[in-house]
Amino acid sequence: MDADSSSGGGRHVFRPWSAQGGEAPLTVAGAQGSWFWDRDGNRYLDLASQLVNVNLGHQHPRLLAAIAEQARELCTIGPNFSNDTRDRLALLIAERAPGDLDRVFFTNAGTEANEHAVRMARLATGRSKVLTAYRSYHGATAGSITLTGDPRRWPNEPGLPGVVHFFGPYAYRTAFHAEDERQECERALGHLEQVFQMEGPHTVAAVLLETVVGTNGVLVPPDGYLAGVRELCDRHGALLICDEVMVGFGRIGEWFAVDAWQVVPDLITFAKGVNSGYVPLGGVVMSERVAAAFDDRVYPGGLTYSGHPLACAPGIATIEVFEETGMLEHVRRLGREVLGPGLAKLADNHPSVGEVRGRGLFWAIELVRDRATREPLVPFNASGAAAGPMAAVMNSCVAEGVWPMCQMNRIHLAPPLVITEDELRRGLDAIDAALRTADTYVTA
Amino acid sequence: MDADSSSGGGRHVFRPWSAQGGEAPLTVAGAQGSWFWDRDGNRYLDLASQLVNVNLGHQHPRLLAAIAEQARELCTIGPNFSNDTRDRLALLIAERAPGDLDRVFFTNAGTEANEHAVRMARLATGRSKVLTAYRSYHGATAGSITLTGDPRRWPNEPGLPGVVHFFGPYAYRTAFHAEDERQECERALGHLEQVFQMEGPHTVAAVLLETVVGTNGVLVPPDGYLAGVRELCDRHGALLICDEVMVGFGRIGEWFAVDAWQVVPDLITFAKGVNSGYVPLGGVVMSERVAAAFDDRVYPGGLTYSGHPLACAPGIATIEVFEETGMLEHVRRLGREVLGPGLAKLADNHPSVGEVRGRGLFWAIELVRDRATREPLVPFNASGAAAGPMAAVMNSCVAEGVWPMCQMNRIHLAPPLVITEDELRRGLDAIDAALRTADTYVTA
Ligand SMILES: Cc1ncc(COP(=O)(O)O)c(C=O)c1O
Ligand SMILES: Cc1ncc(COP(=O)(O)O)c(C=O)c1O
Repeated sequence: MDADSSSGGGRHVFRPWSAQGGEAPLTVAGAQGSWFWDRDGNRYLDLASQLVNVNLGHQHPRLLAAIAEQARELCTIGPNFSNDTRDRLALLIAERAPGDLDRVFFTNAGTEANEHAVRMARLATGRSKVLTAYRSYHGATAGSITLTGDPRRWPNEPGLPGVVHFFGPYAYRTAFHAEDERQECERALGHLEQVFQMEGPHTVAAVLLETVVGTNGVLVPPDGYLAGVRELCDRHGALLICDEVMVGFGRIGEWFAVDAWQVVPDLITFAKGVNSGYVPLGGVVMSERVAAAFDDRVYPGGLTYSGHPLACAPGIATIEVFEETGMLEHVRRLGREVLGPGLAKLADNHPSVGEVRGRGLFWAIELVRDRATREPLVPFNASGAAAGPMAAVMNSCVAEGVWPMCQMNRIHLAPPLVITEDELRRGLDAIDAALRTADTYVTA
Repeated sequence: MDADSSSGGGRHVFRPWSAQGGEAPLTVAGAQGSWFWDRDGNRYLDLASQLVNVNLGHQHPRLLAAIAEQARELCTIGPNFSNDTRDRLALLIAERAPGDLDRVFFTNAGTEANEHAVRMARLATGRSKVLTAYRSYHGATAGSITLTGDPRRWPNEPGLPGVVHFFGPYAYRTAFHAEDERQECERALGHLEQVFQMEGPHTVAAVLLETVVGTNGVLVPPDGYLAGVRELCDRHGALLICDEVMVGFGRIGEWFAVDAWQVVPDLITFAKGVNSGYVPLGGVVMSERVAAAFDDRVYPGGLTYSGHPLACAPGIATIEVFEETGMLEHVRRLGREVLGPGLAKLADNHPSVGEVRGRGLFWAIELVRDRATREPLVPFNASGAAAGPMAAVMNSCVAEGVWPMCQMNRIHLAPPLVITEDELRRGLDAIDAALRTADTYVTA
């Protein structure tokens, strides 16, 4: 475009995951803590932490101070030089990562973290296949979208060779005809073992999974599942990669979500919560064994902004704030005492609620037309008119002053971890009101 | 790692494109303008602008002010909301982009920009193949590393299906037995036409190339080449994608490098110079035709930080500074009057210089053992002892107080665009001195 444009610039932005002809989204004028507001002064409780990234809420003064200080000192420096801020964040992450995971490769965000983790696993094992779960999201670059196990992958195929999908545990909609969580866990592990056998165990470089599945439903693994996968990987010489882009850094009340089940993967990928996304940052934390594979051999991957100082500085501040404020315990308590019980009560009162599930400050409400058949409120991957009921539910939430994330037939709740008990109760009241809209679609 | 570590954190950083067992890189303590320095106070003239990204130099006050102001106002907001800063940068880019390229999809950096551009081209055309050049670099995620035409791709294969490499023009080491630039251009176009024919023109979604090839040698296209590629694409219904991650935003004295040849591609990818990498940012600017393909159809790609406000703010400041200071003309003048002629003189004086080439503030010195045979100073893709002579040349540069980028048998010079004529002359003197080391390897 060469002409002058006095019109607003919004029409020059091409929006992700959207048909561009649709309505322009809401303009956010400002935000603070757990709230954001538009130009007309309408305030919304951010029950999605944007895209589950502002874990410390909006405009946290400590993170802003860290950015300001780093910007004054040294805004950026290439990854071919050393930098103290980068070094310090790597140290702080290594100290908090489980087991011997103590080397950090920094990326710009989540998709790159998964791309590099898979590359590391392939080269470290000398094997090519990666097993990854249906009902998962790992990012949108060619590798990560192939690893993804949801419909976002479909328009992007054929993808990278060597990726095989398996079914993970999901008791509410079991793929294994299981009757309870324990059986679901056992059968899901049996299924994964069969996939290993059919693919040739010696060809499998890694199993990659979301420790707690995020956008595909907040699927909390049953006790024993992650340990079982770890055991399968060990038995077959494959590495275990846990994608904690969405659930690491406090989301479920742990530094790393695997800590809740005391399982140590070989690689963990992270992003979002590491610095609340105030500056794009992600990374891979890996075991000494994985790192050692590249002691003498060049690691064939990189990026211009690996370990960007301005991104690392709020990462350091994030860890300090977590520790000074007892954030992990705050998250666990709110999950245990407020959000969990509050959602259970909504499930009792609303026939449209099929199941509520979650941990810490990471929950989903699965909406159904019929509790007995579990028919979802809208079909799998519905769009347009077929997705109407969920659009109506989201509109009701917005009308009630809360902004959750709606995915397929689910309302996801992932508020900033700094949310207060009062704010959270207010959010639950708003969801309670909005669920009346969902109830109108119930057929039985 | 769970134990306390009082040791420095540097050993917890996993470094890109490196064997991890090597020596730790230099720690940069600070930087300003065209200079950076280490803890011992050794100062270096940054002749590489880090990884050719700090186009406005280190710690530019206007960019820092823009970051500080945006941080105070609103550090981050998800791409599912509108934001004025993002909108404004998109508008400013659209106004400066050639032809009808006026829609911007923002990414975190370069590799994601290319991944999305290729996805857009494939979906917009309904075709699958992408033709891309040998001697090119497009990024390190699975798609971009497959598109890459240099040895960084090799350890990452097999890659994404549907990528085919062709030879571009490179008169100094012609693949076409050409005797001059004009013939090289003509034959390179003939070769590309043959590749189209052999691949099936109707299967080709796009040709992707670096407008000026960067890390693979600062290969400036001969006049007529880009226009010829444009014509071939039009004839076969393929899109033209120009990767300007390294050469956009002033590097060669143009907003977009294609402007130097008045060619309008369908998509341009950018990163680095857009905001000097003070905050990770990249993107794709596309024609109305490409954007329109997604008016009604969902674009199946995205990322958490698309259009990150804190990244867009210094982008706006960058464009303002460029215009207020006449930056493009400054770059052209320094290239034409200082760097170009200065390098030509070095070529006259040093037998190790096979060729110097470049444009604006983007140049390469190609080093040879023998000017007649053009045998490179070190073999293609040399490492370890075989790369020794180039390591010695780089060490000499560092000893002389300048920090260029050495790639294979070449010294690349890409100083901050804010460099003064005096600083540039000082840099040339240092390179002059360092070339004496290269001369010692000359065999004829
Ligand atoms: C589990 C998971 N992995 C990876 C990603 C991709 O991260 P990004 O959008 O930062 O590339 C996401 C983003 O939502 C995610 O939820
Ligand atoms: C021409 C070109 N394209 C793409 C990239 C990849 O950019 P990034 O490292 O920001 O992913 C680079 C990086 O040097 C580049 O020079």
